[in-house]
Amino acid sequence: MKRILTGDRTTGKLHIGHYVGSLQNRVKLQDQYETFILLADIQALTTHFENPKLINASIYDVAIDNLSVGLNPEKVTFVQQSLIPSIAELTVFYSMLTTVNSLRHNPTIKTEMLQYGFKDVTYGFLGYPVSQAADITFCGADLVPVGEDQLPHLEQARKLVRRFNALYMDEHMGIKEPVALLSDVPRLMGLDGNSKMGKSLGNAIYLSDTEDEVRRKIRKAVTDTNRISIADKGNPEKCVVATYHKIFTQDQYDNICEMCRSAQIGCSACKNVLITSIDELLTPMREKRRYYESHLNLVKEIILDGSSKANKIGNETVAKVKNAMHLSL
Amino acid sequence: MKRILTGDRTTGKLHIGHYVGSLQNRVKLQDQYETFILLADIQALTTHFENPKLINASIYDVAIDNLSVGLNPEKVTFVQQSLIPSIAELTVFYSMLTTVNSLRHNPTIKTEMLQYGFKDVTYGFLGYPVSQAADITFCGADLVPVGEDQLPHLEQARKLVRRFNALYMDEHMGIKEPVALLSDVPRLMGLDGNSKMGKSLGNAIYLSDTEDEVRRKIRKAVTDTNRISIADKGNPEKCVVATYHKIFTQDQYDNICEMCRSAQIGCSACKNVLITSIDELLTPMREKRRYYESHLNLVKEIILDGSSKANKIGNETVAKVKNAMHLSL
Repeated sequence: MKRILTGDRTTGKLHIGHYVGSLQNRVKLQDQYETFILLADIQALTTHFENPKLINASIYDVAIDNLSVGLNPEKVTFVQQSLIPSIAELTVFYSMLTTVNSLRHNPTIKTEMLQYGFKDVTYGFLGYPVSQAADITFCGADLVPVGEDQLPHLEQARKLVRRFNALYMDEHMGIKEPVALLSDVPRLMGLDGNSKMGKSLGNAIYLSDTEDEVRRKIRKAVTDTNRISIADKGNPEKCVVATYHKIFTQDQYDNICEMCRSAQIGCSACKNVLITSIDELLTPMREKRRYYESHLNLVKEIILDGSSKANKIGNETVAKVKNAMHLSL
Repeated sequence: MKRILTGDRTTGKLHIGHYVGSLQNRVKLQDQYETFILLADIQALTTHFENPKLINASIYDVAIDNLSVGLNPEKVTFVQQSLIPSIAELTVFYSMLTTVNSLRHNPTIKTEMLQYGFKDVTYGFLGYPVSQAADITFCGADLVPVGEDQLPHLEQARKLVRRFNALYMDEHMGIKEPVALLSDVPRLMGLDGNSKMGKSLGNAIYLSDTEDEVRRKIRKAVTDTNRISIADKGNPEKCVVATYHKIFTQDQYDNICEMCRSAQIGCSACKNVLITSIDELLTPMREKRRYYESHLNLVKEIILDGSSKANKIGNETVAKVKNAMHLSL
């Protein structure tokens, strides 16, 4: 069975954008691959070092989010990043093989620097691709499920691995060069029409939202702003709610658009349909969530056991790497 | 007893410039302070990642150099950097608290970039001050013996520690802010007149040099180039050998200079005096060296035992740090 490394930074609860963008896919992949889910609390620090309590709470939140969507702790390995010293060690080794310029020109880093408004970026933030290469390789992952926007990071990781192998490794025992498993699910826009549903943008429906919260949020979602009265014909192309229906009410999507265009359905009724769809998605997750939230010790055990298993693998990787680098006495 | 952290990058054997610049001082300090000697094989990678075998050989070489000058393994703790994962972990934590610009403006980094001729510097090289902060704080060092040129690194480490403490630590349990122990010994110039005696410049007398090598090297040392015949009066101000006499033949220094200025001593005889002085310094070291070179297993044990002791301290530091950063479940 090939190995997959995926995960989330622990900077807040996950939302339905994460679900359609990656969690949904993870649930499928867990049967085909040996899956490692990284709870990336160290990488959370790259943007949230001033809010350590949020990072801490998010370790549990993100683990439970992943469990609630149907990831099976008997199959997947949950790993708390800060519990794995070998990731830090590999990060330091790899940092010798990457130039500052190649990091500065990484498109994802550039975009994120704009998004977070960092003028004077931290050393750790700039090193994100280096640290990600360490995440992927500490456990010898074959595949990394990524969205298009994460491809430059993965490409940089692949380059690093090739450079490392060329410098230190025999032909037959190199570090595994990870391959992208591109997911084709489109990015979910925010309820406010922002192109991205973001934890920090206040425009998200969380996997942990109650029925009331879902209803309240969808009622406020942005629709076609030219449609003022219910008698006006709407334009689904300009409506956030329609983009959600396309994903969450797939089988009725064409019908709903048609009714909107001909003013047969009002925005309020249309939103009610979406509320039902989202609740249908979230209801079974809520049940699992309730279970794990009332068994926090079990969640802790899942994380600690997984991290302990990962540590063994990581330590073996580092031993192999140190040996290849002639660092052993 | 206060604790000191010092050490050397394992990029080659140490020379008499290292001796007068720091090793000599270490021997004195070992009685006043609990001394940790870092064999910095990871930091060696910042400039020598393409030459891992040299780094490996230098771990033993540098340890034996330190032992040969009189450092007592019963008193000081030898630490191989790559054996201490907590240093890598702290490096990663600290990297979130340092901006790229502050590293680029570090004067030592700037100078070294020029010296090594790096145009496109590696991420690891740029992060040297961050990694040095981790070296110093993993073992809670109170003091760091430094030369003037290393002060910017130490200042950056102190800043980092203050920032870390302000962000995460209670008033009474912060990370210790290290203090510089400035050594006033002048830098030894190279035998070729280069302002620095450098491992890589081919102008050094190594602590491990034989009597023959010392004689051969000093005979080729640059003297006052205006003094062509033995009858010419010399100018000690323009003579490399004179700068050595000032350090290694201190009690006869004024006398030798006077004889040079009045053409009472020729360069060859003057060099013979220096050869004797250097050999007087090196002879007892050679004896110790022979002992350790014929007991390499003992050297290995000294390094492994020291690293194991250091690891315990480092792991405690990281546990404390992670706790303060709310990274524990």
